[in-house]
Amino acid sequence: MMKASMDNKHLLASEIEAYFDRLWPICRSITGDGLRKSFKILQEVIPLKLHEVPSGTEVFDWTVPDEWNIRDAYIVTPDGKKIADFKANNLQVVNYSTPVDKEVTFEELDLHLHYKKELPGAIPYITTYYEKKWGFCISFDEYKKLPREGTYKVKIDSDLKPGSLTFGDLILPGESEDEILFSSYLCHPSMANNELSGPLALAFLYRELSKIENRKYSYRFVIAPETIGAICYLHQNKKKLLNRVKAGYVLTCCGDGGAITYKKTREDESLTNKITTHYLNHSEEEFTEIPFDPIGSDERQYASPGFNLPVGVVMRTSFGQYKEYHTSYDNKELMDFKKMSELIHFCTGLVKAYELNDNYVNQVRYGEPFLKKRDMFEDLSTKLSHSDLIKMRLRLLNYLDGTNDLVDICDTYGYSIFDTEAEIKQLLEHGLIK
Amino acid sequence: MMKASMDNKHLLASEIEAYFDRLWPICRSITGDGLRKSFKILQEVIPLKLHEVPSGTEVFDWTVPDEWNIRDAYIVTPDGKKIADFKANNLQVVNYSTPVDKEVTFEELDLHLHYKKELPGAIPYITTYYEKKWGFCISFDEYKKLPREGTYKVKIDSDLKPGSLTFGDLILPGESEDEILFSSYLCHPSMANNELSGPLALAFLYRELSKIENRKYSYRFVIAPETIGAICYLHQNKKKLLNRVKAGYVLTCCGDGGAITYKKTREDESLTNKITTHYLNHSEEEFTEIPFDPIGSDERQYASPGFNLPVGVVMRTSFGQYKEYHTSYDNKELMDFKKMSELIHFCTGLVKAYELNDNYVNQVRYGEPFLKKRDMFEDLSTKLSHSDLIKMRLRLLNYLDGTNDLVDICDTYGYSIFDTEAEIKQLLEHGLIK
Amino acid sequence: MMKASMDNKHLLASEIEAYFDRLWPICRSITGDGLRKSFKILQEVIPLKLHEVPSGTEVFDWTVPDEWNIRDAYIVTPDGKKIADFKANNLQVVNYSTPVDKEVTFEELDLHLHYKKELPGAIPYITTYYEKKWGFCISFDEYKKLPREGTYKVKIDSDLKPGSLTFGDLILPGESEDEILFSSYLCHPSMANNELSGPLALAFLYRELSKIENRKYSYRFVIAPETIGAICYLHQNKKKLLNRVKAGYVLTCCGDGGAITYKKTREDESLTNKITTHYLNHSEEEFTEIPFDPIGSDERQYASPGFNLPVGVVMRTSFGQYKEYHTSYDNKELMDFKKMSELIHFCTGLVKAYELNDNYVNQVRYGEPFLKKRDMFEDLSTKLSHSDLIKMRLRLLNYLDGTNDLVDICDTYGYSIFDTEAEIKQLLEHGLIK
Repeated sequence: MMKASMDNKHLLASEIEAYFDRLWPICRSITGDGLRKSFKILQEVIPLKLHEVPSGTEVFDWTVPDEWNIRDAYIVTPDGKKIADFKANNLQVVNYSTPVDKEVTFEELDLHLHYKKELPGAIPYITTYYEKKWGFCISFDEYKKLPREGTYKVKIDSDLKPGSLTFGDLILPGESEDEILFSSYLCHPSMANNELSGPLALAFLYRELSKIENRKYSYRFVIAPETIGAICYLHQNKKKLLNRVKAGYVLTCCGDGGAITYKKTREDESLTNKITTHYLNHSEEEFTEIPFDPIGSDERQYASPGFNLPVGVVMRTSFGQYKEYHTSYDNKELMDFKKMSELIHFCTGLVKAYELNDNYVNQVRYGEPFLKKRDMFEDLSTKLSHSDLIKMRLRLLNYLDGTNDLVDICDTYGYSIFDTEAEIKQLLEHGLIK
Repeated sequence: MMKASMDNKHLLASEIEAYFDRLWPICRSITGDGLRKSFKILQEVIPLKLHEVPSGTEVFDWTVPDEWNIRDAYIVTPDGKKIADFKANNLQVVNYSTPVDKEVTFEELDLHLHYKKELPGAIPYITTYYEKKWGFCISFDEYKKLPREGTYKVKIDSDLKPGSLTFGDLILPGESEDEILFSSYLCHPSMANNELSGPLALAFLYRELSKIENRKYSYRFVIAPETIGAICYLHQNKKKLLNRVKAGYVLTCCGDGGAITYKKTREDESLTNKITTHYLNHSEEEFTEIPFDPIGSDERQYASPGFNLPVGVVMRTSFGQYKEYHTSYDNKELMDFKKMSELIHFCTGLVKAYELNDNYVNQVRYGEPFLKKRDMFEDLSTKLSHSDLIKMRLRLLNYLDGTNDLVDICDTYGYSIFDTEAEIKQLLEHGLIK
Repeated sequence: MMKASMDNKHLLASEIEAYFDRLWPICRSITGDGLRKSFKILQEVIPLKLHEVPSGTEVFDWTVPDEWNIRDAYIVTPDGKKIADFKANNLQVVNYSTPVDKEVTFEELDLHLHYKKELPGAIPYITTYYEKKWGFCISFDEYKKLPREGTYKVKIDSDLKPGSLTFGDLILPGESEDEILFSSYLCHPSMANNELSGPLALAFLYRELSKIENRKYSYRFVIAPETIGAICYLHQNKKKLLNRVKAGYVLTCCGDGGAITYKKTREDESLTNKITTHYLNHSEEEFTEIPFDPIGSDERQYASPGFNLPVGVVMRTSFGQYKEYHTSYDNKELMDFKKMSELIHFCTGLVKAYELNDNYVNQVRYGEPFLKKRDMFEDLSTKLSHSDLIKMRLRLLNYLDGTNDLVDICDTYGYSIFDTEAEIKQLLEHGLIK
């Protein structure tokens, strides 16, 4: 079923890569101009509407923090070497660091240095959104070599002032107000799989879904800074989300070459889980399903008890399951853009399963429909054995009784929902189901 | 429990065989005089009330077709040989063929010939109830030998005119209006297992059940032409069936020597399934249980979504599971009349399980009943261990609380429902349950 | 978690043993002065309120019998030997024997003698509460040696007169009227595991539970003669028990060295089963769980259908599962007082699980709570991985939504409920749950 769309896979891969390269160098955070600049680039693919939430706004239990912007940061060692240079790698400064410009001993500096012994060559990614601190992140290899004597100069040219937090959303409308949500986050500086892969996959998925004609569902796309951005979004759209979202997915860590991972929704019995599991079982993709756990990305917010939205997570190798996670090693080398375009097609197919699935109802409820008069039964019945098509027809007509949706019946008989597509169309045309 | 009734097994077998021999030669169809003649013979065993439904009557999505009667049919080959002689075997003509009397080339004739390559010696069974056509069925062995040159004469002396469709039913009344349904079909010409075994089993089952005294349930017996006859029946009895039928069975393919097959009801949680599975598990019969599927015999109609009646199927080797099905090889050689009489006793036992099962309610609800004062407890209690009878008594008294029926409790403790028969009688006599 | 309380294990064991030794020689029955004397001794540990139910009182389906008291009983053999001496072992007389004082042949005597061939050295325990009879119990070894000729003298100095049945109860109050019931029985003469272990365990459990501060639940303790006493108790406290008892246990056969046996409640889905299974799974005790069966001790009455109280049974080796059961071999040699004190601590821990479990409700329902502002989140989030404590915190905050109680969540994540104790306290203090 994914054959046709597979043809543009390589084309798509190189297009994603071009956007990746443009977004990579920008220093993003949960607020600030780097974030806005990144949104602007993504808008070329997905025409998100951007929203600004002023610093100090109360959003449920949280408060939107001051806006952070940074221009430069570095350390000068006692022997005059410039290290931890923000302009060379924006992970070197602790994200949301307050400004600093002074001379310090190694002892004092040491309290502000972060490294990762387990991955001695990597610069770790550290943030201090909600506590006014400053710091630098360096590789453990570099840390070990720093002179313990002499005077260091530290400089962070940042500011933290009232401003606003930016997020973007868009509705791709369908016949119904019922929605399927796709959400990803934008807030990390230069990282690849756990930053850019999510919003890029979402942006290009939008482009694929906008090609589907006569959409039944509406599709809601959200890109926001992780956690606080999702909370802002939920706060501003509470009623609509509660009324309309019938299924949804967070997209994250979509960029590596691993198998698909599906993290289920908080409630086991959800349309999202039913359709996704069905679709995975009939796909040729390798996959793993993992249970919901309120530890992870923005699914935590969508599934907070007051919302409890049926939002799962689609990823390849799960966050925290690869060693490069949250370090400078999570970079382009980790990316497989062909696999990423496959994931976008995977999601497009998943959407087609939702579009096809429905709670169709048999219009001849008492006795079987008389198929022969509609030319829908075998000619000169041998009755020796029905064809597989007639069997499927009889099963659909019997079980589409208002208590089962299509995918339920498919699961009973081991059909892929796409196997029934032509037959459903015919039954609709004959008025045998509605 | 079936010992006593087993004694008349041989007697019954030969009686069934005699009726089989009388019914065998008649050319039946879904309408017509062959059908009526067959009903007359069956009425000697089961006093069915016959009903006629005029051609043209609309029954749900269907319309009763014109009545078909046939007197003769044959082909004369170019070399003057009479073949496909209806009078020798009524399968040779396509059932419901329109009249024809003309000369044709082999090429034209070939369009009207049906054979079965996989079973080259057998005449297949073909019908054309809802399309005005004519045709002959011959063995593939014969087909191969037919001259390709010369003129064939074809003759079918049939007529297709407004008339009526015949079916029969009967209620064997019990104390309650709650009913157990037994249904079979009558419409095939000379075939054995997949035609005569069903109505014969049903007729003789009626005779056995009419011997049961103080029946709790009423028993509804239906014999009708398959599909269209069942639909007529459902149409005329819609409300009664929906209100009264608590369990039911289609009887078909009861005549061979295979193990019992039970095809379950459309809803898994049905009294029919519960009782039948319990009964099978405690019987000495080999058996298979298969899930419901809206492909098969008249269970398709009883289980159409508007009715959704709890009707299963009892058979030996299932339709389509034996190679002789729907050919001239489905004949007396396939029949095992002793096994057929065993199946009738099997069904009689099944009915006894329904009669015994009930939602009895304990009349001493607070604390155990004081059994000793009723002489229902061990004398000089050693309390070292209760007898199995006392254990059963305590369990029945505790669990017959209105939420479990008897067979539920039997299933919990591994009892056969018949093991509890004497005890239930005693508890009723002492007023301990009602 | 039981470390601290384990320290007084040996102390407790020897205290239980001292009470055992005082209770042992008393001849108890379902009524009478032996029963009252035993209650008086137990009152030193648990201040039960005693109740007297007059003979002839109707209690549900039962009637309280006359009161039985006995002073002496013995047989003199033809050769003048005094055997079956009640004063040496009170099992020698059938409990509730009517008075007798006469000379009899062996033939007549034989009708009144009880022995146990499978355990030839043991005196069996036999009762005749509801039938006026007399009899003696002797070992089979002794029985075999009795002279078959000559005159025996039999003497039972007992009386059976209107009086009353005695039981005791006590409420250990907590904040709520919701109760957890502990019940045991007192009615057997000198037997150890299946008599004294139950009421002794219950008495000392009371002492442990009374030390728990700020109890949430109230605890109901009941000691009554088995069956008739429990029925009297249920009769007098019907409404209260139905309204208040949320969980409960019968304690019996707590005295041997076997593993813990938990017999489940009548309804599978009970708080009692959920908490007990959770507690067992996280305890270091070996254990077996067995299903409810209305055969056993007073759980039969608590679970009679009108009450259907969620009362399970805690024991070590189950009644009837050890060969000494209901004989003179069920004596002090069978007892392991250290194990018995462990069982009391086991029950105390079980109660602590009830006290800790609750249907707490998250007070921040929309989006995650902002933990950082409460100093409840990691400092300088590395987000590389949350600590186990933060994971637990996020899980509790998400799932404590009013539909799950604490133990449900613990079961999902494999936590022991005690692992969450400190965290629950902190969440309550911060007002994050209520």
